[in-house]
Amino acid sequence: MPQGQPSVVPDDGLTTRQRRNLPLLAVHTGDGKGKSTAAFGLALRGWNQGWRIGVFQFVKSAKWRIGEQTVLERLGRLHEETGEGGPVEWHKMGSGWSWIRHRDGAEDHAAAAAQGWEEIKRRLTEQTHDLLILDEFTYPIAWGWVDVEDVVAALESRPGRQHVVITGRRADPRLLEAADLVTEMTKVKHPMDAGRKGQRGIEW
Amino acid sequence: MPQGQPSVVPDDGLTTRQRRNLPLLAVHTGDGKGKSTAAFGLALRGWNQGWRIGVFQFVKSAKWRIGEQTVLERLGRLHEETGEGGPVEWHKMGSGWSWIRHRDGAEDHAAAAAQGWEEIKRRLTEQTHDLLILDEFTYPIAWGWVDVEDVVAALESRPGRQHVVITGRRADPRLLEAADLVTEMTKVKHPMDAGRKGQRGIEW
Repeated sequence: MPQGQPSVVPDDGLTTRQRRNLPLLAVHTGDGKGKSTAAFGLALRGWNQGWRIGVFQFVKSAKWRIGEQTVLERLGRLHEETGEGGPVEWHKMGSGWSWIRHRDGAEDHAAAAAQGWEEIKRRLTEQTHDLLILDEFTYPIAWGWVDVEDVVAALESRPGRQHVVITGRRADPRLLEAADLVTEMTKVKHPMDAGRKGQRGIEW
Repeated sequence: MPQGQPSVVPDDGLTTRQRRNLPLLAVHTGDGKGKSTAAFGLALRGWNQGWRIGVFQFVKSAKWRIGEQTVLERLGRLHEETGEGGPVEWHKMGSGWSWIRHRDGAEDHAAAAAQGWEEIKRRLTEQTHDLLILDEFTYPIAWGWVDVEDVVAALESRPGRQHVVITGRRADPRLLEAADLVTEMTKVKHPMDAGRKGQRGIEW
């Protein structure tokens, strides 16, 4: 077991065990690759712990399905079949979330993003998931579609032990301030710089 | 399908399709989190493409099993049972690799690392895997247990279409030079700074 020594022991009245078990808010940001991939890697770990995984992708196209979705949903079915791991829900914004029955067909991404966030707030209150991945959620915040103060307030007051990972560039400083763990993925070198396009299995 | 436009079109006599399908050498380095997790996330994608996945962990303890190993090996068995995805092999160095029948019991990590690299070279020649993850392989290179020039030569001359991801801090500049894709994971904020220790499902 990794036993890193914390550099500070806080005077917060908590035992090490209590502090260890605090729910985490992590942000993966920066211009490099790996922000979402690392988040989905955490979902693998969480699934293996039996956690209830919820992925919410704030992407504009619902058509695009990445390999991780196929595999994590397969793991969710494996849980249903054998009891291994935990249940998995994967939702994509697209032009409207799957839980919204009557879509008006208009591609109002701002409204869709706001609806997505309202649903996530409900789920946080109800403690529906043990790990929530809000993929590319920094963008609707940056574009003003979702109010960052509302996000921070909801995350800071979430009950129980719900881990949340938010990915995307241009993370709002108030979100970073609220986060326990912030990792910046920096592009040092990318094949597109050498004239290559993305390829199956690597980019998606 | 993500259709990023490369910033340069190289004069290398290759078509876009040929260039797209070149095998990638990626390095995840830096002091932040997510280096290995993002690599294992790529393994998820590769598995979903039917790729033959080989993970080689250059860690000193064979006792420690991370959640990703359990899940990826489970996906490997799923491949055997149903034909979904691809086969998965996961090897840990520990005090000797599982493919070495007669271990002398002595924990000679330098020798074990060199043996691991020799096996990986054989597999590269034989094109055993479509995606090889050499986890924490930067350390035996940094410690001089494995010769970086030999690593670069073997990777640059590898036949076919084998993707390789190397993770770890202190990546050798010659390795970065040889890589197509380098991402640096930078720690911006970590809960250990606030006195928390690692926790199950997040750290392992």
